[in-house]
Amino acid sequence: MTSTGACVGSFDVGGGYEFDRDTSVVSLVDGDSGIDERFRRHEFRNYECRVVEGWDILGNANGGYLLSLLARAAVDATGRPDVISASTHYLAPVSAGPARIRVETVRSGRRFATAMVSMHLDRDGRDREVLRSLLTLGDLRGDPGGPSRRFDGAPDVAPYDSCTVDDRSEWPVAIRSRVDCRFDPRDAGLRTERRSGEAVVRGWFEFVDRRPIDSLSLLLACDAFPPALFNADLPLGWVPTMDLSFQLHGLPTGGPVMCSFRTRHLDNGLLEEDGEIWDASGNLLALSRQLALAPRG
Amino acid sequence: MTSTGACVGSFDVGGGYEFDRDTSVVSLVDGDSGIDERFRRHEFRNYECRVVEGWDILGNANGGYLLSLLARAAVDATGRPDVISASTHYLAPVSAGPARIRVETVRSGRRFATAMVSMHLDRDGRDREVLRSLLTLGDLRGDPGGPSRRFDGAPDVAPYDSCTVDDRSEWPVAIRSRVDCRFDPRDAGLRTERRSGEAVVRGWFEFVDRRPIDSLSLLLACDAFPPALFNADLPLGWVPTMDLSFQLHGLPTGGPVMCSFRTRHLDNGLLEEDGEIWDASGNLLALSRQLALAPRG
Repeated sequence: MTSTGACVGSFDVGGGYEFDRDTSVVSLVDGDSGIDERFRRHEFRNYECRVVEGWDILGNANGGYLLSLLARAAVDATGRPDVISASTHYLAPVSAGPARIRVETVRSGRRFATAMVSMHLDRDGRDREVLRSLLTLGDLRGDPGGPSRRFDGAPDVAPYDSCTVDDRSEWPVAIRSRVDCRFDPRDAGLRTERRSGEAVVRGWFEFVDRRPIDSLSLLLACDAFPPALFNADLPLGWVPTMDLSFQLHGLPTGGPVMCSFRTRHLDNGLLEEDGEIWDASGNLLALSRQLALAPRG
Repeated sequence: MTSTGACVGSFDVGGGYEFDRDTSVVSLVDGDSGIDERFRRHEFRNYECRVVEGWDILGNANGGYLLSLLARAAVDATGRPDVISASTHYLAPVSAGPARIRVETVRSGRRFATAMVSMHLDRDGRDREVLRSLLTLGDLRGDPGGPSRRFDGAPDVAPYDSCTVDDRSEWPVAIRSRVDCRFDPRDAGLRTERRSGEAVVRGWFEFVDRRPIDSLSLLLACDAFPPALFNADLPLGWVPTMDLSFQLHGLPTGGPVMCSFRTRHLDNGLLEEDGEIWDASGNLLALSRQLALAPRG
């Protein structure tokens, strides 16, 4: 699907956007690829990439950004443009630098493919696995379809124009120079510890350089806002994601997407956070759920 | 952690219950085990088991039952008693018969371990992978804990005594001879196509032989009720799970557990179903979410 050692550009959005440049992966077709001897009949393929600075929170790369890197490789290896579902386990914090991605195509069916993808760092001469993910991939554009029903409406999020652009000086995390999270006025106080008291964060997501939002971008959007828990009574602090699950329900059409994240349960330091991403016309695009470690307090 | 070729019994519930007998796995410590040459430093271990008849729907083994088999092997391989989170991708329907489970311990930390687990069938001399799962395991009893907050209450489910025991003749699926799903009166009509019109199923889960409910049983409970979508307007039919994610929030204390399942979104034939499992005292035990293929209609 790619030329050997060439940069893989599966997403035809053009324009040299930051997100595409910083999620590019290089296929190593001639290298350590082929049929896995252990899981016979499963194809695997290796990629090189770079975890780029500027997509991090205090030096740790954002989980949605890392997932986007895995997805770029899986899309290339399976030849399917859309991540339909993803279950990603985060094994260790990831700092900027070179990385390797391995894609094993576990199943390749008519409508969907399943891939297991892992990211490995080479730091100080040691191979360290930092992410492991199971992805289902498909093509929503060419999808034969099936029934659709909406049993629940879009969340109550203020319109785009009433939401305030993130002031980068108030929230000093590097990823804020790449993505604009416009906060619903009710939730905007969490940046300066004027908390709403409700573990909810709502707003709109878009790229600073206005890269059109496609299905790949939703993997970043679902982890781009600060934890909803910050609007409740717990101390601000590092909230490492243990695992993140994602479901694609519709294809974006390019413009900013409406996001709502809510934590309903925190038990023994483990919190769940549910996310919903909708477009401006009221179409559901994606659902997410994560399990994360809460700051002590 | 186990004697070679011996039946692994990690769950000390005693009594020779059906669920324990039918999820037992045999460790093949002396066989194809050790350090994986491809992912260096990752331990893996193989198990044999049997997918037992009677836990199926029309011949296809229930997804929660299969996940329980994987969990038994992962608990043994990692030495951690509780599945804290699970992301399971179902690759093919599974009929009764012998199976092999492979556990790779991806990460083993102080508080949690991460394992990748796969199930393989040997049918007609071919090795076929049918499940792939990523599990986080830990020990909630010995957990050092951390903050807890409840931002949302238990779902509205009728008390145990007001719920009606599943009439096995009305719902002819084999798993109903192993588990008792007591339906909330508002949702009980779906068994005979007297639908509520709302894509919700609520009730109580317990084993027919009254095996005490522990954390392992919740993996079965989260997939034991009929699809919530059956209470809406779509035709009844096979609803294959594509992937199922699970989070453990608390330890059960043995008695029946309260369950609520809801489908909010069905897009192009792909439905999400969210589940919650609570105990009778109002403690959250588990959350689940699945992506499944809806019957056409």
